[in-house]
Amino acid sequence: MSILRGCLRGVLAPNASVVFRSRLAPQITSALLCPPRSLSGTPLAERDRKVTEKMSENGTCSRILTLDSMNPCIQKVEYAVRGPIVIRAVELEKELQQGVKKPFTEVIKANIGDAHAMGQKPITFLRQVSAICLYPELMNDNKFPEDVKQKAARILQACGGHSIGAYSASQGIEVIRQDVAKYIERRDGGILSDPNNIYLSTGASDSIVTMLKLLVSGQGKSRTGVMIPIPQYPLYSAALAELDAVQVNYYLDEENCWALDIDELRRSLMEARKHCDPKVLCIINPGNPTGQVQSRKCIEDVIRFAAEENLFLMADEVYQDNVYAKGCAFHSFKKVLFEMGPKYSEKLELASFHSTSKGYMGECGFRGGYMEVINMDPAVKQQLTKLVSVRLCPPVPGQALLDVIVNPPKPGEPSYKQFISEKQAVLSNLAEKARLTEEILNQSPGIRCNPVQGAMYSFPRIHIPEKAVKLAQAEGQAPDMYFCMKLLEETGICVVPGSGFGQREGTHHFRMTILPPTDKLKSLLERLKDFHQKFTEEYS
Amino acid sequence: MSILRGCLRGVLAPNASVVFRSRLAPQITSALLCPPRSLSGTPLAERDRKVTEKMSENGTCSRILTLDSMNPCIQKVEYAVRGPIVIRAVELEKELQQGVKKPFTEVIKANIGDAHAMGQKPITFLRQVSAICLYPELMNDNKFPEDVKQKAARILQACGGHSIGAYSASQGIEVIRQDVAKYIERRDGGILSDPNNIYLSTGASDSIVTMLKLLVSGQGKSRTGVMIPIPQYPLYSAALAELDAVQVNYYLDEENCWALDIDELRRSLMEARKHCDPKVLCIINPGNPTGQVQSRKCIEDVIRFAAEENLFLMADEVYQDNVYAKGCAFHSFKKVLFEMGPKYSEKLELASFHSTSKGYMGECGFRGGYMEVINMDPAVKQQLTKLVSVRLCPPVPGQALLDVIVNPPKPGEPSYKQFISEKQAVLSNLAEKARLTEEILNQSPGIRCNPVQGAMYSFPRIHIPEKAVKLAQAEGQAPDMYFCMKLLEETGICVVPGSGFGQREGTHHFRMTILPPTDKLKSLLERLKDFHQKFTEEYS
Repeated sequence: MSILRGCLRGVLAPNASVVFRSRLAPQITSALLCPPRSLSGTPLAERDRKVTEKMSENGTCSRILTLDSMNPCIQKVEYAVRGPIVIRAVELEKELQQGVKKPFTEVIKANIGDAHAMGQKPITFLRQVSAICLYPELMNDNKFPEDVKQKAARILQACGGHSIGAYSASQGIEVIRQDVAKYIERRDGGILSDPNNIYLSTGASDSIVTMLKLLVSGQGKSRTGVMIPIPQYPLYSAALAELDAVQVNYYLDEENCWALDIDELRRSLMEARKHCDPKVLCIINPGNPTGQVQSRKCIEDVIRFAAEENLFLMADEVYQDNVYAKGCAFHSFKKVLFEMGPKYSEKLELASFHSTSKGYMGECGFRGGYMEVINMDPAVKQQLTKLVSVRLCPPVPGQALLDVIVNPPKPGEPSYKQFISEKQAVLSNLAEKARLTEEILNQSPGIRCNPVQGAMYSFPRIHIPEKAVKLAQAEGQAPDMYFCMKLLEETGICVVPGSGFGQREGTHHFRMTILPPTDKLKSLLERLKDFHQKFTEEYS
Repeated sequence: MSILRGCLRGVLAPNASVVFRSRLAPQITSALLCPPRSLSGTPLAERDRKVTEKMSENGTCSRILTLDSMNPCIQKVEYAVRGPIVIRAVELEKELQQGVKKPFTEVIKANIGDAHAMGQKPITFLRQVSAICLYPELMNDNKFPEDVKQKAARILQACGGHSIGAYSASQGIEVIRQDVAKYIERRDGGILSDPNNIYLSTGASDSIVTMLKLLVSGQGKSRTGVMIPIPQYPLYSAALAELDAVQVNYYLDEENCWALDIDELRRSLMEARKHCDPKVLCIINPGNPTGQVQSRKCIEDVIRFAAEENLFLMADEVYQDNVYAKGCAFHSFKKVLFEMGPKYSEKLELASFHSTSKGYMGECGFRGGYMEVINMDPAVKQQLTKLVSVRLCPPVPGQALLDVIVNPPKPGEPSYKQFISEKQAVLSNLAEKARLTEEILNQSPGIRCNPVQGAMYSFPRIHIPEKAVKLAQAEGQAPDMYFCMKLLEETGICVVPGSGFGQREGTHHFRMTILPPTDKLKSLLERLKDFHQKFTEEYS
């Protein structure tokens, strides 16, 4: 039985999403060139490889794994945050090191939310506890405060053989899951959290992909559709491509500060139901790349919508500590859900995600995080636990770090004062940089930047002259990629084109982080302004 | 177009591997119950859920994610090393803590290669460097030797913002990849290794699954087949189930100390070519769960076979430091490949895997590891790099630890003596325990244990009386699962049934680690012997 592979159906079927179609030439070819095995026993696919590849001297096929033979779903995957622009940025850094002359002296990577790489200092308390966990001999070192030692001792007590080098339970160390549950209860004003609903993870990406993996099923018109915001964080589109699910786009309202609009959600869902089975609604709040913070009313509307339409809700809340704008506050989907009463709190299936990489700590390298699942079918939870057990466990140093984050020093404890002042210094500095970014970018006539209410990014809209658009298209490049590449080559500033996150047809954006040190950020923004002006003049 | 999903085809197609068919009732049902959307717009799949599930008071479907609606490939996944037996072991531990009376006072987890959990102490040097990387203030602490500080400084120098909390390059920190390449060159007698062929990973499991992901493609008879040893480490069968690839079994020769037999490889390949496209050959050397160490000649034969038959070779070499038996030595597939000359070294595609979790260090919790790829198509390498970038980067503390492992103290350096003596103490202790395990188990008439030449496990064959076999089957349990469960309940000893790794029809085994402290291991083995005797009498 010769059946086209799922992700090819995604392309060939009339209902395929257009974004994909453009990218798929290679694997369509490969699939069509990939007939079943002949009776002789020689695989035709192999003959095919022989045709399409250079021979080795003995005449047999020279390579088994090629673009033609590899998993076509993987070819569809794109991840702009570390895409071509970043590869070029790294090359430029090397050229600078080798003394190659450039119109700039350093490359500034504003492409990714990597706080420490931008000079943010680690929070002392987090690192002190971690260091003792790794090298318990430091317990006897009187340079470490008592509360640091107690916290480390408690974590080690919960590790196999009292060593951070032992595997943990696949769901995560139980004591740490209990601490996470208590943290969630404090955050949500006492609404109960069950440690058995907490799954520790290798960063948030890990558990987001795991949840999507569980949710994807079906064929043709009953293939799972997953609703994601546009612009989105490209982990979502990448995971959906890999899992061969249908990406269902709903557009955020740029004119309304990137707010989520329920009518647009409904339009998107109705449209999608014509060609797939939309089962999942993904929300990113605070928004990445938009920096928007959802109002409580918006969250209530989303919950009502998801309940009415029978959608599984995935709430990406990794920026919950990153809210800066006056009048904005973070409301967890779980808290709002439970405050809306049993009609919703006993029905809606929700998974919420958090990470050690963002917030005030910015500990990306540890790859720590957790997911909380609400109203999940117990039988499915068993499947989830089984699935995560195949990877044995999340990194234990990251689990330990997460424990300190959800269970920080309390008033009166030796480390409290320093911890709070370090934490507040980071957050107020981020708030200041969010304000600066909006202010300076909006001084430029061709750039329009919504307020950065939260998270770590601005996603300004840029005017690109028709001439540049045509030139870019002639080179088969997205116009904003063309702009960002030129920006990088001429100024050393590395930002990510809006096309990597998704945007309305005909609009152009880029994503930049607000993380560089204040002075560097100011000069970066000024240079960006000047470059855009120069660029506009050059192509007008 | 209504097409059955891949992994269902795997079951329904005549060529489906039998192991799967037995397990799949639920998702076959769900798929056949899962028709396309009706014109009315109400998804039939949803109606279907309404039929198969209890209603909530408002009559709409109560759950979106259920066993019927979830990804059927995930239901197929099994992972015995952390399966039901281990879940029960954890329950028993809790019961003991609560003071419940048992015929034993502690549960001994011999189910998983978790050295630190079994009391093995971390290597001082590794932890000292790691601690400074996490808390650089320790640079000023004169309790740390100079070489420790230099190593930590070098690693931090290579981190973004000199912090282990920054993301690294997705392929891993460049300096560390260079150190890994140098380590491989030393290991392989000077054969060159290119840092660009090194991918750091989140333990070895991560890169093994990533490689399989790239390799899987095709439909029906051109669906990718992956050859794995039986018995195998169940990561392989789990990943293949999840990826919907065809598992192609080749049986290791228990009568010949679990050696790999080329004729059996050929038989398995020819058989598989009737119903799929076998493209990949997986080797585990030293063997898990068998503890067998392959001879150089065997490796040469495998390489010749893979080259003749156009197979991509995956060499799981995570136990390369764990070789104990006289006359046995570890030969890396890469070294042998290159010593066989350009006919092979310029053609064969090879991926080799290593980990920080095993060897003498046993640092499982850090989730560190690397993969080296040889002769990989440059275009595919780009796809691989793109794929790993979606998960951002492997845990940086694990990368740092790996760097110290591949770049240990040299003679004359301050930490050398202690490092070497700690390392050798661990390895000679493991060698002693490997010998003990074989010796004591073979004293029992109903147990036959091959020599534990390497790795961390024995996989003894056990006689199970016909009566017990029948009883187990009546309860729908594998006979060796029945034996292991009884063993656990009566002695507190937790080992994994052979059925979780695969074994020849009608034979029964279990896998146990050799990791418990020597005295505990001795008494464990004696109790195991006694239990088996009692069990045999009871059911004869």
